[in-house]
Amino acid sequence: MQLGTLKHAVDHKPVASDFAIIEADRPVCPEGGIVIRVVHLSLDPYVGSRLRGRHMGEPAPEPMKGAIPGAIIGQVVESRSPNFAEGDWAHAMEGGWQEFVAIAASEARKIDPNVAPLAAHAGVLGMPGLTAWSGITQLAKVGPSDTVLVDAAAGPVGGTVGQIARIKGADRVVGIAGGAEKCSLVTDTYGFDACIDYKSDGWRDRLAEALPDGLSVFFENVSADMAMLALTHAQTYARGVLCGLVDAYHTETQSQHPLNAGLIIGKRAQLFGLVVYDFYPRWDEYVAEAAPWIASGQLKFAEDRADGLENAPALFERLMNGKNKGKAVVTVAPEQV
Amino acid sequence: MQLGTLKHAVDHKPVASDFAIIEADRPVCPEGGIVIRVVHLSLDPYVGSRLRGRHMGEPAPEPMKGAIPGAIIGQVVESRSPNFAEGDWAHAMEGGWQEFVAIAASEARKIDPNVAPLAAHAGVLGMPGLTAWSGITQLAKVGPSDTVLVDAAAGPVGGTVGQIARIKGADRVVGIAGGAEKCSLVTDTYGFDACIDYKSDGWRDRLAEALPDGLSVFFENVSADMAMLALTHAQTYARGVLCGLVDAYHTETQSQHPLNAGLIIGKRAQLFGLVVYDFYPRWDEYVAEAAPWIASGQLKFAEDRADGLENAPALFERLMNGKNKGKAVVTVAPEQV
Repeated sequence: MQLGTLKHAVDHKPVASDFAIIEADRPVCPEGGIVIRVVHLSLDPYVGSRLRGRHMGEPAPEPMKGAIPGAIIGQVVESRSPNFAEGDWAHAMEGGWQEFVAIAASEARKIDPNVAPLAAHAGVLGMPGLTAWSGITQLAKVGPSDTVLVDAAAGPVGGTVGQIARIKGADRVVGIAGGAEKCSLVTDTYGFDACIDYKSDGWRDRLAEALPDGLSVFFENVSADMAMLALTHAQTYARGVLCGLVDAYHTETQSQHPLNAGLIIGKRAQLFGLVVYDFYPRWDEYVAEAAPWIASGQLKFAEDRADGLENAPALFERLMNGKNKGKAVVTVAPEQV
Repeated sequence: MQLGTLKHAVDHKPVASDFAIIEADRPVCPEGGIVIRVVHLSLDPYVGSRLRGRHMGEPAPEPMKGAIPGAIIGQVVESRSPNFAEGDWAHAMEGGWQEFVAIAASEARKIDPNVAPLAAHAGVLGMPGLTAWSGITQLAKVGPSDTVLVDAAAGPVGGTVGQIARIKGADRVVGIAGGAEKCSLVTDTYGFDACIDYKSDGWRDRLAEALPDGLSVFFENVSADMAMLALTHAQTYARGVLCGLVDAYHTETQSQHPLNAGLIIGKRAQLFGLVVYDFYPRWDEYVAEAAPWIASGQLKFAEDRADGLENAPALFERLMNGKNKGKAVVTVAPEQV
């Protein structure tokens, strides 16, 4: 079978030529485990820092041997667990770039292929969507009268943040994204009230204009600097979710990601550190709530798809440079065999 | 009457010789206001930065004219308000260094002189105590099984933080203070489990030893650096109250007070900015809860007293240098006339 791996150890922002697609043996089903035939593979920014050994202590894969980490969606073709039967559909965070994944049953989550398009389980119903839901509904507890600001708003986390905030009753939802095309996605497809293109001149002024009464909630995906910019627009008692520091994944020096404590105090802000791992036990609850929103058209998503594992490296490089349009998903094999 | 003022505008950490005690006219009672004969005057660190025009936009007093700001406790000697009668006891945050204070009735709070020693309303029942209560009970919501760390633990905020945390059921309470004498106050009088002297060698190691299982709550009074030190000892999901940045009140450059966002996320920490002003409407509620703790001996306090307004400057300088032993209070006049 095919397996995507690193050609060599990397200590830079990964590019397509860092990856190799090699032939590997189809893995053997462990006692208590399952083998999944991979249909969709999720590409996510955190993997970029993980490949450099920088992500929360998690190891990088061994070059020319270990699979690149990545969540997968696929069908169970072999089971030595009472919890899965052949033909079941499953999602596994620790799947990886490979055509077949052998994994402990406890590491996989059964999914219903009928609640939404299958690839949605990589994005809006996957880890990015769960991240958005956790921050908006469990930490910031967004409700009526809230004004919400989120950056990386065209991405699968940011776009879902704004839409769930709206579904939960937020008065006003504003995004920040890079470029006119992304901003169109945010306002026209995701239905945000405004989206500020941070690559355009005068964008800070337009952000202020888009938040005439300030914000009550911000959801930070990019950097400590952006969190501080959000805080300058915060109403007293604003809540902030600190979720990602994507800008720092590939800076060459160890950053301190400084937040200004004086501003936090002055605004009486409440800040929450969010790590989505903590909410994995509630994934089914999230899917049960969100799948009907997708069906009814309240919750929209965009995908940037590649076909075949051999095209994963190029899409991953686009993702690393923010050039993907929507959730990056590689379709490794057809749904039906 | 006597009035304490600035000799000149200051842009340094105030010292005793910056102050003048001058003769001023006894103020006239405004329509809807009261005149209070001041008995006790509270000296508090925030006034040091306020005298330099650095405290939350509040103005410094005019040299040789305006009274130094300070909370006062005294007896109403004239009232043009239906809410106060002559002889009532009152507390006012915007009193100032003067023998008589004329103030709108809405700016004063009636106090019961019998629930605790009168001067306690400057400290443990005053703004410092309310600050501690607000952070511990309303923001961090300390309860059984919590381990609480607080710095400036010998001060009226820190000492009360630890004691209220204990009353609310905290398993373990650890303080940080400067010097053996202050640490003795913290452990022997306030009953903390441990107090680490940050002026002693190896104190960071001893702090780690005092928190073998980490902390679940920290209450920050000193600096962003200390908050980050606390966070390195934090358990996952720790709560932190950001209350004061006393170390920065008199630094000569504008500090950013940087907190490391990556550490906040990694610890899934929840941070709360605390400004005690917001809790002034709940002052009576706090006093009703805390006065019985004082009566029963559960909540202890220490005072550093000066007699007479002429001794306020020297005590204020000691306070600015952390040399006060307990809450700094100036007794301006006897309780009984």
